[in-house]
Amino acid sequence: MVLRQGDDVLARLETLMREEGIPSASISGFGFVASARFGFFDFERGDYDPRKFEDLEIVGFSGTLAWMDGRPSIHAHASGGDREFRVVGGHVLALTVGRGSFEITVTVHADRLQRRIDPSIGAKVLLLP
Amino acid sequence: MVLRQGDDVLARLETLMREEGIPSASISGFGFVASARFGFFDFERGDYDPRKFEDLEIVGFSGTLAWMDGRPSIHAHASGGDREFRVVGGHVLALTVGRGSFEITVTVHADRLQRRIDPSIGAKVLLLP
Amino acid sequence: MVLRQGDDVLARLETLMREEGIPSASISGFGFVASARFGFFDFERGDYDPRKFEDLEIVGFSGTLAWMDGRPSIHAHASGGDREFRVVGGHVLALTVGRGSFEITVTVHADRLQRRIDPSIGAKVLLLP
Repeated sequence: MVLRQGDDVLARLETLMREEGIPSASISGFGFVASARFGFFDFERGDYDPRKFEDLEIVGFSGTLAWMDGRPSIHAHASGGDREFRVVGGHVLALTVGRGSFEITVTVHADRLQRRIDPSIGAKVLLLP
Repeated sequence: MVLRQGDDVLARLETLMREEGIPSASISGFGFVASARFGFFDFERGDYDPRKFEDLEIVGFSGTLAWMDGRPSIHAHASGGDREFRVVGGHVLALTVGRGSFEITVTVHADRLQRRIDPSIGAKVLLLP
Repeated sequence: MVLRQGDDVLARLETLMREEGIPSASISGFGFVASARFGFFDFERGDYDPRKFEDLEIVGFSGTLAWMDGRPSIHAHASGGDREFRVVGGHVLALTVGRGSFEITVTVHADRLQRRIDPSIGAKVLLLP
């Protein structure tokens, strides 16, 4: 998958899952993003503390595509370097492709995998068959 | 593979290798760890200088599963972001999963690969068939 | 693929592509490099601002192998930690393996993929069939 400037990476992956009927997949990718929103989970609050970064060369993007309540559920982490090559990263809340492109390799699995909220930790967990 | 809080990532991969009889594999993963011990190899001393980090969102985890003297031999590197999204990383000495989970994709290869210590550098090297 | 001290990672991948006739591939890897040259693209100038780093444990290396004008065209990003475990990274201009080794997993695709310069941004973009 080759995304281009302005593309919302997670939204494009959700569309791919629906259109191709992907049961589940592992993804990896890299490319240039105009903006990245990363989150660090606050288990007290049960939500991510977000932070936005601009103009990053994403050097690592790994995730899994699964389903929750009939809807695509994507979990991905990423890291990226700025123009000083300092790397920041975390849980991906949003990525928007910048000038250039963003390449993603999607390895499709045969099993339809589900995610479910584990009430003991208040976070989504991938269930294996 | 979906690991949960308290799991020792390398030990769980070794168990998987034995139980499933995995000849060799490439792995990649991501998730939240309560603690990570990374090492930087000191070739003079022939060992890793270790350092421990806590509460990291692992943004990249890559490695290979092979065998040495009949026992699992795992070589993996990882990086992770803290709550300020600063990323640290290196050779993985240990990873313990935190609240949340740790997802690993295991791509199994047909060849049984061996690692052997290369005496010229004092470090283990993967042998290809 | 297991590379050893002194190997030029991109040159070795190009040789592999020619010798094995690889139509296209996704790659991932990790290992120790004696030197890494990363670049951050300057769209005004149409070229990468380079910086060289020494002695890094590469914690993530992702890329795609394709062709342009009949020649191998490799696009890869990487990040690596120094002896203080600080991670730097970006677009890969060059990587030279250090003492130790560098392991790369090459996932070959059936389609021969091409890269072409997109004149609107002055950068190479991977074309999908």
